[in-house]
Amino acid sequence: MVKFSSCFLQGILERLDAGEIVIGDGGFVFALEKRGYVKAGPWTPEATVEYPEAVRQLHREFLRAGANVLQTFTFYASEDKLENRGNYVAEKISCHKVNEAACDIAREVANEGDALVAGGVSQTPSYLSCKDKAEVKAAFRKQLEVFMKKKVDFLIAEYFEHVEEAVWAVEVLKESGKPVAATMCIGPEGDMHGVPPGQCAVQLVKAGASIIGVNCHFDPDTSLETMKLMKEGLQAAKLKAHLMCQPLAFHTPDCGKQGFIDLPEFPFGLEPRIVTRWDIQKYARKAYDLGIRFIGGCCGFEPYHIRAIAEELAPERGFLPEASDKHGSWGDNLSMHTKPWVRARARKEYWENLKPASGRPYCPSMSKPDGWGVTKGARELMQQKEATTEQQLKELFQKQKF
Amino acid sequence: MVKFSSCFLQGILERLDAGEIVIGDGGFVFALEKRGYVKAGPWTPEATVEYPEAVRQLHREFLRAGANVLQTFTFYASEDKLENRGNYVAEKISCHKVNEAACDIAREVANEGDALVAGGVSQTPSYLSCKDKAEVKAAFRKQLEVFMKKKVDFLIAEYFEHVEEAVWAVEVLKESGKPVAATMCIGPEGDMHGVPPGQCAVQLVKAGASIIGVNCHFDPDTSLETMKLMKEGLQAAKLKAHLMCQPLAFHTPDCGKQGFIDLPEFPFGLEPRIVTRWDIQKYARKAYDLGIRFIGGCCGFEPYHIRAIAEELAPERGFLPEASDKHGSWGDNLSMHTKPWVRARARKEYWENLKPASGRPYCPSMSKPDGWGVTKGARELMQQKEATTEQQLKELFQKQKF
Amino acid sequence: MVKFSSCFLQGILERLDAGEIVIGDGGFVFALEKRGYVKAGPWTPEATVEYPEAVRQLHREFLRAGANVLQTFTFYASEDKLENRGNYVAEKISCHKVNEAACDIAREVANEGDALVAGGVSQTPSYLSCKDKAEVKAAFRKQLEVFMKKKVDFLIAEYFEHVEEAVWAVEVLKESGKPVAATMCIGPEGDMHGVPPGQCAVQLVKAGASIIGVNCHFDPDTSLETMKLMKEGLQAAKLKAHLMCQPLAFHTPDCGKQGFIDLPEFPFGLEPRIVTRWDIQKYARKAYDLGIRFIGGCCGFEPYHIRAIAEELAPERGFLPEASDKHGSWGDNLSMHTKPWVRARARKEYWENLKPASGRPYCPSMSKPDGWGVTKGARELMQQKEATTEQQLKELFQKQKF
Amino acid sequence: MVKFSSCFLQGILERLDAGEIVIGDGGFVFALEKRGYVKAGPWTPEATVEYPEAVRQLHREFLRAGANVLQTFTFYASEDKLENRGNYVAEKISCHKVNEAACDIAREVANEGDALVAGGVSQTPSYLSCKDKAEVKAAFRKQLEVFMKKKVDFLIAEYFEHVEEAVWAVEVLKESGKPVAATMCIGPEGDMHGVPPGQCAVQLVKAGASIIGVNCHFDPDTSLETMKLMKEGLQAAKLKAHLMCQPLAFHTPDCGKQGFIDLPEFPFGLEPRIVTRWDIQKYARKAYDLGIRFIGGCCGFEPYHIRAIAEELAPERGFLPEASDKHGSWGDNLSMHTKPWVRARARKEYWENLKPASGRPYCPSMSKPDGWGVTKGARELMQQKEATTEQQLKELFQKQKF
Repeated sequence: MVKFSSCFLQGILERLDAGEIVIGDGGFVFALEKRGYVKAGPWTPEATVEYPEAVRQLHREFLRAGANVLQTFTFYASEDKLENRGNYVAEKISCHKVNEAACDIAREVANEGDALVAGGVSQTPSYLSCKDKAEVKAAFRKQLEVFMKKKVDFLIAEYFEHVEEAVWAVEVLKESGKPVAATMCIGPEGDMHGVPPGQCAVQLVKAGASIIGVNCHFDPDTSLETMKLMKEGLQAAKLKAHLMCQPLAFHTPDCGKQGFIDLPEFPFGLEPRIVTRWDIQKYARKAYDLGIRFIGGCCGFEPYHIRAIAEELAPERGFLPEASDKHGSWGDNLSMHTKPWVRARARKEYWENLKPASGRPYCPSMSKPDGWGVTKGARELMQQKEATTEQQLKELFQKQKF
Repeated sequence: MVKFSSCFLQGILERLDAGEIVIGDGGFVFALEKRGYVKAGPWTPEATVEYPEAVRQLHREFLRAGANVLQTFTFYASEDKLENRGNYVAEKISCHKVNEAACDIAREVANEGDALVAGGVSQTPSYLSCKDKAEVKAAFRKQLEVFMKKKVDFLIAEYFEHVEEAVWAVEVLKESGKPVAATMCIGPEGDMHGVPPGQCAVQLVKAGASIIGVNCHFDPDTSLETMKLMKEGLQAAKLKAHLMCQPLAFHTPDCGKQGFIDLPEFPFGLEPRIVTRWDIQKYARKAYDLGIRFIGGCCGFEPYHIRAIAEELAPERGFLPEASDKHGSWGDNLSMHTKPWVRARARKEYWENLKPASGRPYCPSMSKPDGWGVTKGARELMQQKEATTEQQLKELFQKQKF
Repeated sequence: MVKFSSCFLQGILERLDAGEIVIGDGGFVFALEKRGYVKAGPWTPEATVEYPEAVRQLHREFLRAGANVLQTFTFYASEDKLENRGNYVAEKISCHKVNEAACDIAREVANEGDALVAGGVSQTPSYLSCKDKAEVKAAFRKQLEVFMKKKVDFLIAEYFEHVEEAVWAVEVLKESGKPVAATMCIGPEGDMHGVPPGQCAVQLVKAGASIIGVNCHFDPDTSLETMKLMKEGLQAAKLKAHLMCQPLAFHTPDCGKQGFIDLPEFPFGLEPRIVTRWDIQKYARKAYDLGIRFIGGCCGFEPYHIRAIAEELAPERGFLPEASDKHGSWGDNLSMHTKPWVRARARKEYWENLKPASGRPYCPSMSKPDGWGVTKGARELMQQKEATTEQQLKELFQKQKF
Repeated sequence: MVKFSSCFLQGILERLDAGEIVIGDGGFVFALEKRGYVKAGPWTPEATVEYPEAVRQLHREFLRAGANVLQTFTFYASEDKLENRGNYVAEKISCHKVNEAACDIAREVANEGDALVAGGVSQTPSYLSCKDKAEVKAAFRKQLEVFMKKKVDFLIAEYFEHVEEAVWAVEVLKESGKPVAATMCIGPEGDMHGVPPGQCAVQLVKAGASIIGVNCHFDPDTSLETMKLMKEGLQAAKLKAHLMCQPLAFHTPDCGKQGFIDLPEFPFGLEPRIVTRWDIQKYARKAYDLGIRFIGGCCGFEPYHIRAIAEELAPERGFLPEASDKHGSWGDNLSMHTKPWVRARARKEYWENLKPASGRPYCPSMSKPDGWGVTKGARELMQQKEATTEQQLKELFQKQKF
């Protein structure tokens, strides 16, 4: 197999229209939190200015693992979000600078290989605190200006819990004339206002998105269920769009409508849920079989998870990623181990069927999501428009038993 | 609290003799395998030459997380090992070059902060294939020459399954005149020839090691049990040495005498066993209470695990590591979260008592180590002197049912 | 509290119409299999003739535990079933004799307390092998004749997977003029022909059943979900009936449409799934809150499980069952234990919140139901009309991979 | 195979001396608690007087399952114990009556088959509250008088936590001239005064016991470990005795020195720990291989568990128990099931390898025993001489955090 794709320099839509598989990158906030550059809680990306070499290195690892798209590290980088979380940032860094630096780093690394740069926007505190459409759109437009100046290849609106806001984001991004992808962080139950996945998909395509799907909040299996509903929704509406999936790299069979944030383990006890490379190979195969051609990951996805997508789909793509130099297919690099029983693990059947133990006999296998103790009225209020003022939260909190 | 130690530029023994806590770094082969730069199976460190920026970045992360010692990435970098595994390396790189590059990178990063550079040697294929003392010592001496030329601050002999070979390594390293630390990858049952931990400790100290302990192969709790036995051994022999512990960051309550390699999940299905930062805080506290003052980690330890050691022991040390800028103590950075139930997680008691779910209801919590099906005679043979020729392995393998 | 109900000698409908709670009995085939009198596989009740004292003893235990209804032990006692399984029975015993003996024993014990005798019929092999309505009804009528001769108090058609056959059974039983209850062994997905629970309920009531619900195949929580759907079906159709629930005493969150039979543990490895008395108290309370007033159990329910229903609902009923003489409420009989930590368990809060460990660290917490490997066509065939001839089975089996 | 042993009417020692396998019975207090006749907490056997038919039925079931020994239901039936727990007993029943009735019932059932009657004594509150040897012996002698009058076939001193008291019991029972068996409820760590199993065995044999071993408190695997140590102790002392093992039918890999009483699930949440019949077959085989020839069970053993011992050892014994009429070997009675996937379970390999799921994804697989929070001094005090007065307990309890 040759090691590189011959189709470099083509745009995202040209690739997808040609039936090519496009591999996304993994999760920046979780990976950089573990490396010491992002703070859990605010999850803001000021590291693009503070520690550019750390961000650059992670981009490189994803590129090397096979990613065809490098997303600018601009998650939660809208001005309102950065201000909102501003007290966490040591030195005040402007929204503009954070976004510019993110574009520069992504482009620098993309140029080292066969990858496109995607500028990304995500849901805003302005929407959640009931600001009007104009105000929310203004926030997206501010980031878009940077993306245009820095000439990103295409745009992604991702991590939206409400299709209404996602549609606004797509509308803004479409003003650029560049291709727009849109993914929501929803599960099979739909968005926080109760819009089912099929309808979300239809609204996003009608708003102008060429690629739609889901990201974050749920594990690969659950995300693929949601993708199936989105696909059916488009089919029923006789609409066409490319499909994209970037789930968590955590097993979350037990999470409720709002995903892994409500799990008691979020965000500092998720380790036992981390998926293996073999889980990801199964996910990549299922995603492919469902017709999804933009396949990547979100929180929890490390470079080796992205490599697992590229390795699983190597037969279809005709090549392996660079990082496979340091990896044997299905453990075949164990075939020289000195212990015969470790050598016996050098085969696909072994890893495919392994049920890995947790090593934690005092822990359960599933958790009940939090937030169930909240009265229904309060929960709905919070879910629909998350309370943002201290006072509101205190009042809600005092009414409940947690 | 001030952020940096004032005691820079002091040597390892000055620090330990003064009662200071010295924090080690984490595991390079596992972390770099996930990042795409090391191949599982051979586990050799040619990345120091091939991808120096990736090695440098990981050193930086550990430094930032609070490590006071940066070990040269020279694990399995003896000439015989590199040759043995040579067929995995794309381009043939000399043993000399790998070791030199490792020293240069470690020193470059150490100079950016308050850290010492330790040159490391580990067990050799020569010993396992029954080579004599002179031959084995020659292999260590070859690496030592590089360490001397590159002026490392002190030396570590680590990852030895047989105290006999560890003693030989210590003897060679002592020729340098530099302080020597020695850690074995054994559990409470002792070394592969049946020497109990207490006796191993005594032999290492008598051979000249100033710091002794364990690394790798077992989880923190098991490793501390072994440390207790080592400490008791020294006390009984009226010997003094500093204690050092660098365990796995995987829960392995179910492993046998040879540690995690025999677990069916090794090395590609260990994810559910990864320890949380809170597990590490408990480990750091217990290690400290046991009198251990050189506290670090081995395979599985990511930068945030090292930071957890530094945060737990911040009251004793008087300062936090740089990376704590991006971390709240015991989750306190969740106190501003918009969901009240997530805010309720911003407290020590919550994370201390969490029993994290695996999200894997179809998986067990413990595994039976492999190698049990092997007949006793063959297993003992393999454990005492691991078979190294293809022919020997085939013969053994054919005799067994796996 | 007084110990006995004052309402003895009233009929089942008088009791339910008056708003009284009626407690059913537990599972005979599983309990007697463990005692050595019933064979798993055939599950036929010839013990009524062979070992009447063993059957009598179990009836007595349920009566003493608080059961208000003693069901004749006539499960799978239709003539076609007994013949079908005849090769298992040591001596050939007539269907007539088995049914008569069952009635006599139940009546003898019922007379010792405040209980009604219910004659029971269940699904027939004739239906599954595509016999016509007349033939199937004839089988029920044969059993009914015995029930009429032996003057049972009312009739129960239970354990039906197809509402069509259940309706036929109800129609036959209604010929007697006695009150008829009908329960299906279905879950929330409905019957094996795809009829949803709400519609099943409507059909059963229209056929003449005064009491409807579910029994067997699913755990209490799943069964209550099905009951909710049945209740909603009746409400939507503006029909009225009393509700009855007799679930398994096994936790089965992982079972598919056909219930626990498809679980790999059925029937000889179900032990770790057995529910505690506290699980049953929760079930009884939820059932009551849902408006169910005939509350009992099926396979797995031992006398102490039935007692747990009676104890939970003692405040509503005004009395405790006789067997509570040998039981303290919520463990209060531990308050005199010599160990303080065992005494600390003598309280409701303790048992209510206990997450009992399995003691099986090498086992998972959930299983995948069998039968998934079967091709869809074959599975549907088998589910709709279970194959009965050896030849059919062999052919189907050979076509599949198991 | 013939169905009955030809060796009836021989004494226990004749049987064992001849190399015969003797099968014990199961646990009365747990089985009768679930049936509604024994109260958990006091665990006293006044049911022999109150509900003789229930006790008789359980004896019959064990006989039918293959038991060669019926133990009188006289557990905790010493006068001091009955008085101690007297407040639980509805009507005051004399110790004498309870023991007499127990003998009569056991003999009546034993005469129905090939079984011996064993009179049993167990540890006394007098010993635990520091009464002297004479007083404790007097309590045993009181029960022995009944056993002599009622002509039991041999005697068992069982459920002793302290070898000192067990020796006193053996000395008293030996006065009768009848064969004496003695089992302690200890694990591999030995008795509550720290006497190791090997020494306990030696002391019991020296005191006159012809059969020695363990019962209760630990699961089969742990009990067999203890048996191995007892056997080694006897061999080292060049003593001979028959070996006997009657463990729990609960998995307890997680319990501490005092066994299952300290587990948080004791006694009302043990269900998920109940062993399967296949677990028991493995236990019976291992016990046989270890040289144990008196093989039975204790708490949790139901008749089908005893049958499993008899079925596993049928090849050695040459016959099956009566209850095997209602049981197929290794599930072969499933071979006629209508579902092919259930029929696929009709084989030994299937059940031998099944890892049964708990159906409880929110529960762990192991628990930490209680009593760990107690300060070491207090715990040792309690373990050595359990506190018996209210005042002592209160004081201890107040000193601790539970």
